[in-house]
Amino acid sequence: MSHNTFGHLFRVTTWGESHGPALGCVIDGCPPGIEFTVAELQQWLDKRKPGQSRFVTQRREADAVQVLSGFMPQEDGETLITTGTPVSMMIENTDQRSKDYSEIARRYRPGHADFSYDVKYGIRDYRGGGRSSARETAARVAAGGLARKVIPQATIRGALVQIGNIPINRDNWNWDSTDDNAFFCPDAETVPKWEAYLDEVRKAGSSVGAVVEVVAEGVPAGLGAPVYAKLDQDIASNLMSINAVKGVEIGNGFGAAEITGEENADEMRIGNDGQPMFLSNNAGGVLGGISSGQPIVARFAVKPTSSILTERRSIDADGNEVDVRTKGRHDPCVGIRAVPIGEAMLACTLADHYLRHRGQTGRI
Amino acid sequence: MSHNTFGHLFRVTTWGESHGPALGCVIDGCPPGIEFTVAELQQWLDKRKPGQSRFVTQRREADAVQVLSGFMPQEDGETLITTGTPVSMMIENTDQRSKDYSEIARRYRPGHADFSYDVKYGIRDYRGGGRSSARETAARVAAGGLARKVIPQATIRGALVQIGNIPINRDNWNWDSTDDNAFFCPDAETVPKWEAYLDEVRKAGSSVGAVVEVVAEGVPAGLGAPVYAKLDQDIASNLMSINAVKGVEIGNGFGAAEITGEENADEMRIGNDGQPMFLSNNAGGVLGGISSGQPIVARFAVKPTSSILTERRSIDADGNEVDVRTKGRHDPCVGIRAVPIGEAMLACTLADHYLRHRGQTGRI
Amino acid sequence: MSHNTFGHLFRVTTWGESHGPALGCVIDGCPPGIEFTVAELQQWLDKRKPGQSRFVTQRREADAVQVLSGFMPQEDGETLITTGTPVSMMIENTDQRSKDYSEIARRYRPGHADFSYDVKYGIRDYRGGGRSSARETAARVAAGGLARKVIPQATIRGALVQIGNIPINRDNWNWDSTDDNAFFCPDAETVPKWEAYLDEVRKAGSSVGAVVEVVAEGVPAGLGAPVYAKLDQDIASNLMSINAVKGVEIGNGFGAAEITGEENADEMRIGNDGQPMFLSNNAGGVLGGISSGQPIVARFAVKPTSSILTERRSIDADGNEVDVRTKGRHDPCVGIRAVPIGEAMLACTLADHYLRHRGQTGRI
Amino acid sequence: MSHNTFGHLFRVTTWGESHGPALGCVIDGCPPGIEFTVAELQQWLDKRKPGQSRFVTQRREADAVQVLSGFMPQEDGETLITTGTPVSMMIENTDQRSKDYSEIARRYRPGHADFSYDVKYGIRDYRGGGRSSARETAARVAAGGLARKVIPQATIRGALVQIGNIPINRDNWNWDSTDDNAFFCPDAETVPKWEAYLDEVRKAGSSVGAVVEVVAEGVPAGLGAPVYAKLDQDIASNLMSINAVKGVEIGNGFGAAEITGEENADEMRIGNDGQPMFLSNNAGGVLGGISSGQPIVARFAVKPTSSILTERRSIDADGNEVDVRTKGRHDPCVGIRAVPIGEAMLACTLADHYLRHRGQTGRI
Repeated sequence: MSHNTFGHLFRVTTWGESHGPALGCVIDGCPPGIEFTVAELQQWLDKRKPGQSRFVTQRREADAVQVLSGFMPQEDGETLITTGTPVSMMIENTDQRSKDYSEIARRYRPGHADFSYDVKYGIRDYRGGGRSSARETAARVAAGGLARKVIPQATIRGALVQIGNIPINRDNWNWDSTDDNAFFCPDAETVPKWEAYLDEVRKAGSSVGAVVEVVAEGVPAGLGAPVYAKLDQDIASNLMSINAVKGVEIGNGFGAAEITGEENADEMRIGNDGQPMFLSNNAGGVLGGISSGQPIVARFAVKPTSSILTERRSIDADGNEVDVRTKGRHDPCVGIRAVPIGEAMLACTLADHYLRHRGQTGRI
Repeated sequence: MSHNTFGHLFRVTTWGESHGPALGCVIDGCPPGIEFTVAELQQWLDKRKPGQSRFVTQRREADAVQVLSGFMPQEDGETLITTGTPVSMMIENTDQRSKDYSEIARRYRPGHADFSYDVKYGIRDYRGGGRSSARETAARVAAGGLARKVIPQATIRGALVQIGNIPINRDNWNWDSTDDNAFFCPDAETVPKWEAYLDEVRKAGSSVGAVVEVVAEGVPAGLGAPVYAKLDQDIASNLMSINAVKGVEIGNGFGAAEITGEENADEMRIGNDGQPMFLSNNAGGVLGGISSGQPIVARFAVKPTSSILTERRSIDADGNEVDVRTKGRHDPCVGIRAVPIGEAMLACTLADHYLRHRGQTGRI
Repeated sequence: MSHNTFGHLFRVTTWGESHGPALGCVIDGCPPGIEFTVAELQQWLDKRKPGQSRFVTQRREADAVQVLSGFMPQEDGETLITTGTPVSMMIENTDQRSKDYSEIARRYRPGHADFSYDVKYGIRDYRGGGRSSARETAARVAAGGLARKVIPQATIRGALVQIGNIPINRDNWNWDSTDDNAFFCPDAETVPKWEAYLDEVRKAGSSVGAVVEVVAEGVPAGLGAPVYAKLDQDIASNLMSINAVKGVEIGNGFGAAEITGEENADEMRIGNDGQPMFLSNNAGGVLGGISSGQPIVARFAVKPTSSILTERRSIDADGNEVDVRTKGRHDPCVGIRAVPIGEAMLACTLADHYLRHRGQTGRI
Repeated sequence: MSHNTFGHLFRVTTWGESHGPALGCVIDGCPPGIEFTVAELQQWLDKRKPGQSRFVTQRREADAVQVLSGFMPQEDGETLITTGTPVSMMIENTDQRSKDYSEIARRYRPGHADFSYDVKYGIRDYRGGGRSSARETAARVAAGGLARKVIPQATIRGALVQIGNIPINRDNWNWDSTDDNAFFCPDAETVPKWEAYLDEVRKAGSSVGAVVEVVAEGVPAGLGAPVYAKLDQDIASNLMSINAVKGVEIGNGFGAAEITGEENADEMRIGNDGQPMFLSNNAGGVLGGISSGQPIVARFAVKPTSSILTERRSIDADGNEVDVRTKGRHDPCVGIRAVPIGEAMLACTLADHYLRHRGQTGRI
């Protein structure tokens, strides 16, 4: 049972709420002998950090990761080497505004988990969303930083490909662009359109959804399994575990429903290097649940945050009908910050399957 | 590790290929005291059985399920009662045409897992697709039949909502219609369109994709968990484990990316019965990973089968470039038979989460 | 959750009762490319089979194992090669005497699980002990046969080292002797003593306990983990899962409690072959939860079967005080047949840890 | 896979070494609504704390537990209530003497895991035993404190019943005595004998083994399962996971091997309260893997620590033969402090099985 754990051999357990003293994760099963620095992990957390543009929440957290176990420090004072024992990481919560929660403690915010938490547990940490806080994802991003080191041959990147009903133009795709704007947008031409649109959304106190694409290149063929440990299944599962995600697709995804078998199946040839080569990648790098050596491509839909400044109808825990309006910091498009989180989940999934494949077959 | 297992408390392990003597499943963790008959399970298998119309594969298998353990027979000679020990079910393979596989044994069919199997395992059961055969899903459907009994308050149904680029008209939705046509189509007006289109596809030796929708009504609020055991995550994972599925969405899914927070969040009121009531169901019945009491709604995209009668370019295991054309039985739209499979996977997921919720909280 | 599963990467799920149509197991995670024959597996089942001497139960079952999935047959018609997919094995029940169970259906036999089953499940398969039947172990022995092939460098053997209060003389230990007598006794001199004693026990309709020792030589150093996946912990757990086992020890076990640190710690030197060498093996081949390369040595205590011909006081399901006497076939020392079962559990544990070690570290 | 996790529904993951900044645990699956205080948890840690008598190691650690997540604080400022989300606990390491490890970094201490760690991982945290440090058990004891709250009807206690070859006299058993001496000894008459003996051992710089008994009274009947989730199996597994434990037994354990079925099977009658009653408890409270309602009784053997002041022969990582003598703090009988650890492991096992039983059957 893994209510708060994912992965089998590279196994990540996260803990913590936004309003406790800290949050973190424990990574069990990390191979020994992996060199890393805290600074390397921190760079991924920094990418996810709130407050970096006007288009995301203004909450300000240092999000400084500490590594508490599972390593031997090296003489340079920076490099750590994993020992194969659990790697525990912790991020202290520093921006807990002391705030009066009495109003929302018993009101169910529409679109939030308030109601379902109360039914399930009979008790709920209403301060900052409890376990459903987006802060929980900081722990995933830290874990993802280590996961990348387990499968260093893979290049794992993400991009925002749609905000509201404005998709990018895929012909303009340029990975380098993703670092040049506040949206991780790979299409420079789309950036100003999104800026204009999101400014509008932001000023209206509204929010909007988005679609994220994550890609892993250089993944060895052979990861995954035919039925219930399909690589694409586990990628989908792990992406769906991110807050606010409502859909996932691999390769051409829902588009595959619309085309014929001739159009969809990726043909093969022998490349100039004498290696097998695919002529297209509708499959998104996964055939029959197993990686094919092509780039792994997945997309996921992020709903608009339900914390908006407009009043909405709801009820409270006492059965009264009430109107609810979210106060305080506001995030017009949570999909933006989902990009580094999606990368992290993909990295963890691949690291896990790399070890699983090695365990069962020894062929890697 | 669960290469061939899904679920935690209601735990299903399947085994078998299409060309061995049999296939089946073991259900571990089924509650004791559940009454069922083999005939009840068989009805679900019959729904999935091939050869029932010209739009699906003509392979003919009796698909007769046997229950081998985990029950006490009752005096009526039909009713079985679960004892809480593993329920083993087996379906014998009866339509294994003796066939010459020498040609395809070393050729990689485009869109199939042949290549990735060979890379992963170094050996492959090329007879009938091995573990990736659609026959494996018979075991899931049998398990789903028992899962429904674990959570009898839920009504779990599925329908085909799109073939190729022809969607149904949702205004015509009528669950009763799904029994009246070869497509499990809930919109009687769309049926003739699909017939005409699929006849064309079939005659061309081609294939086409589809979208399936599965719905569970009557599911108690409280199933699931906030992060890595989200109910929607596990539904997505289990649906993605079905062969040929390339995308999954919950509620309005990818549509959520396109709208605002005002439009997306489901408002609440107190109903005439004094109970909490939602005014819409964009969430698809899951809030923050936990069921809300609304209908659970999920959709998944099924790609067109890659077994088509047109020659396609590929390579073989010896590194030669070859042309491959699938011979023999042909399935123009595998998405059709995915309907009962999707229902079964949803049923198993709900049964599992029902027990998990009861285990952790005792609140059900 | 694994009520009926053990192992993580080499994962064995068993199912079946003595009075259903069959019992069996599914092995998930077996490496691909392992050659085996059904006859090889059958030899281990034959070793465990009842009715081979007057000292064990006279129940007669063919115990013929069938392999239903997970292999490719080879041209010789005998050899099978694993494909990496689940290996399903089944053993049909053939000696189910039609018998009147009405008397025992509601009576709790002392020392049996009748009472605790009823409390737990509210229903119980009283025919032949249900899931607690010794027949369940046939599935383990079949799995153990395949496990040995996963770690062929290990020689895994077992012996009976004590019956009642008559231990063997360890100075006479000779593995070859274990094949020469009905007890798997490694000390020829003890055999006649046990024969005389057990004849007495048998004629009295009584039963007696025993101690089994299992040893694995040739196990590579490095299997296991420091805390909750200790190799000795998992061996203990798996041996304790055998019916009637009440205690387990590794190396000198409970004897370690009685001696000093000087006496207990195994000193090391460099052997003539230049390799590390231990001067004793009090640790039983496991240091800090990890194999050291020395022989793995474990012992387990088997209680006397509670099915005896003497009347014992008990109660029934209706709360009446009753006297219970077991009728029918009688097993004076179930510990004897526990020898091949113990070997099988050790083999499965080692196969699992071999794959786990390879998965995490790649150092094997 | 659970290298550092135990339990299924009450799931404990521990992390940390003795020489990192901290160690701790994450408890996943704890039921919501459980009230506890940090002080309550601390009392169990204090019981385990080193330095409390001359018979245990003089290492001095505050062992102050912090609770970082999974709770709502109550108005009294002390009481915490679990929310059903992961409970993370941390204990900072405060007594890390800066010490020169260069001598032991490459030497294999006999009886320690140094050699097997190096073979397994190729790297080893030689500072204070790394993950094998007894400090790791502090996290278990903290978890055990919360586990007791999950199954409050059970009274879980432990006692030391043997040091070296000096057992207690069981006729003198008095639970109250365990609080009156440095040994958790339930037999006041044995205390001076142990004192005299251990003073001798201590002055000789030697060490000696011990046997611990743990007992749970008030455990409901019905916990456990017939085969691979036997309650006694999981107790044995979890006790074996404690450092230095070499054997475990349930009820009369190895003693069961020596007696007959008549002597061993616990007879039943109806008690004066109209309830089922056992006339003896050879089974140790577990029948067929399921609790019977009688007290659960388990014993485990703890080997003498290998850290002794006498020189022992060994080798180093470079293949040289060396002599090793442990310097510094010395623990003449690690078995003493194993008492609260054993209690904690028993508590965690029972809490887990309580939830598992509730999940599958709903009968509790």
